[in-house]
Amino acid sequence: MNIDCPIPLATEELVRLGHGSGGEMTQKLLREHVFPHLDNEWIRQGHDSATLPLGSERVVFTTDSFVVSPLFFPGGDIGKLAVCGTVNDLAMSGAMPLYLSCSLILEEGLPVKTLGRVMQSMAETAAEAGVKLVTGDTKVVERGRGDGLYINTAGIGALSHSLPVGPQQIQAGDLILLSGDIGRHGMAIMARREGLEFDSPLHSDCALLHGAIGALLDAGIAVHCLRDLTRGGLATALAELAEGAGKDFLVQEPEIPVSGPVQGACELLGLDPLYVANEGRFIAFVPAHQAQHALAVMAAIRVSSDSKVIGVVGDTPPGSEPGSQTGVRGRAVLKNTLGCERLLDRLPGEQLPRIC
Amino acid sequence: MNIDCPIPLATEELVRLGHGSGGEMTQKLLREHVFPHLDNEWIRQGHDSATLPLGSERVVFTTDSFVVSPLFFPGGDIGKLAVCGTVNDLAMSGAMPLYLSCSLILEEGLPVKTLGRVMQSMAETAAEAGVKLVTGDTKVVERGRGDGLYINTAGIGALSHSLPVGPQQIQAGDLILLSGDIGRHGMAIMARREGLEFDSPLHSDCALLHGAIGALLDAGIAVHCLRDLTRGGLATALAELAEGAGKDFLVQEPEIPVSGPVQGACELLGLDPLYVANEGRFIAFVPAHQAQHALAVMAAIRVSSDSKVIGVVGDTPPGSEPGSQTGVRGRAVLKNTLGCERLLDRLPGEQLPRIC
Repeated sequence: MNIDCPIPLATEELVRLGHGSGGEMTQKLLREHVFPHLDNEWIRQGHDSATLPLGSERVVFTTDSFVVSPLFFPGGDIGKLAVCGTVNDLAMSGAMPLYLSCSLILEEGLPVKTLGRVMQSMAETAAEAGVKLVTGDTKVVERGRGDGLYINTAGIGALSHSLPVGPQQIQAGDLILLSGDIGRHGMAIMARREGLEFDSPLHSDCALLHGAIGALLDAGIAVHCLRDLTRGGLATALAELAEGAGKDFLVQEPEIPVSGPVQGACELLGLDPLYVANEGRFIAFVPAHQAQHALAVMAAIRVSSDSKVIGVVGDTPPGSEPGSQTGVRGRAVLKNTLGCERLLDRLPGEQLPRIC
Repeated sequence: MNIDCPIPLATEELVRLGHGSGGEMTQKLLREHVFPHLDNEWIRQGHDSATLPLGSERVVFTTDSFVVSPLFFPGGDIGKLAVCGTVNDLAMSGAMPLYLSCSLILEEGLPVKTLGRVMQSMAETAAEAGVKLVTGDTKVVERGRGDGLYINTAGIGALSHSLPVGPQQIQAGDLILLSGDIGRHGMAIMARREGLEFDSPLHSDCALLHGAIGALLDAGIAVHCLRDLTRGGLATALAELAEGAGKDFLVQEPEIPVSGPVQGACELLGLDPLYVANEGRFIAFVPAHQAQHALAVMAAIRVSSDSKVIGVVGDTPPGSEPGSQTGVRGRAVLKNTLGCERLLDRLPGEQLPRIC
């Protein structure tokens, strides 16, 4: 035994790829090593964005770093993703996206033409979103210390309505709407990365969602909660929101659309589409009496034209209220065609590293 | 000749470390490959932050990614740097810093204790600055695709005064105030990286500057322009501002304080302290009749207690107005002890990679 090092190094906990999964490992890392240092009301809310007072206005602020590999994939690229991801995070709090920042970490040796292509894609997507890229930063790291290009976008949005949107607003009886088929982004990336070929090519669903959200709010739908289905997929979003709301959800598996190519690729790779990342899909919790109106509004918008009701919010299990110390949690339960039920947990570890 | 590849790969321009210098190469990369896609009023201003209308308020927004190596250095660490850097960028536009985001790119294998130490440092520095870390993101990349930890912070500040602050406000006759001795951050990093030892240890000047700026504004000093002296150092800041203002600056080299250890380390490594990065120093352009008052205000604040007048703004050379197409530019001229003058250019390439 080396007396200079009484604690064997093997006990030292190291960051693993699963810590970037957006699922249970990420939450554990944040709970144990990040949040204890940053305790404030916004961090405790655990949202993808923070709603902040600023003078007489309310501002929504969010950030995401994008490390997707490869940089270009069917249906998008890292630049489109970096704009969509941050615009969508703002939209999910019910805000109108206004301004984005763009911070680049370039690896030495990246062709500058590649950077130009990515910037063009960012600019086109920002123009489509009606947001302005207003400030930025550029760093370069040595070969082997990056992977071509990482992008951070932070975003600012304005809250023009007074509707509270968040897990705590979810009510028993709310219907759960899903904006379209799931799993396309993750499987498009995986297929490209693994060199898989299918009869119908797999395209990412990477898209801007603020238009659909804006239309719902403009139509007077009392949206209780919104969540885009990124890392960890639909299942992780449902599990997190059930816990955040302190309510049980009952979700009908046969109502969840999965395209043939995504289903085939998932079977080939042994993945569950419920846990595969999307970049252009969301769920909305709305009062049951407004669900048909909400579906009609979403149907008129291309990105959510295949929206469906996939489930319902049930009662509050005793002791599962948010913040209660009983250990009882709201659960997301999935019912399959045979009527069998299974509990949806957060994605436990890493399924698809560097998906966004 | 390979007919499949008619353009020899050797002609393809690749990103080099110098593109991250913050000097001329960075500007060229942005001018040619980034800005053409992002043309808007804020990008054209070329500031480190953007001042944006948001409802009835004016918001200042900025972002920086931090890739400093090593993560810990005498006088600071990447976490302290990530808070100071973004707070200081907000302060340099005259804004009160309010909110920060924190986005992490972790390399697989990073000890989670290291992450905890960095987060604690961020939290302490944010508390000292009176800003809240309100939103964040965590990504993990494979071993060899990062370097332990990269941090992006974006920041939001509020403009409570109507004083325009920026290069275009610089006037002939303004005095140029420097807040203290230069070169300590860059040389502390280089000494640690190269394993150099000196009699007096080199400590980074990494510090929060918004207190000093707030005190100047509160004292009624009509500050015309502010700039922190980060990548590219004092010389690059002066060259950029002279061009941005369309005016000549005359700077007295003997008035610029450089500590003995920094001077010694610079001589050993063949570096010019005028181009070495600082993380706790700034220059302020103020009307001559307010300069003594401004110095008294700065002297009372620890971070700027050794402030000095280092130069004066001269006339506008004909044809050098901002945006003029004559090719004539405002210049920063340095006069040494012997009375010899030399022109200060932007840092041409890379001097100290990954300094911040």
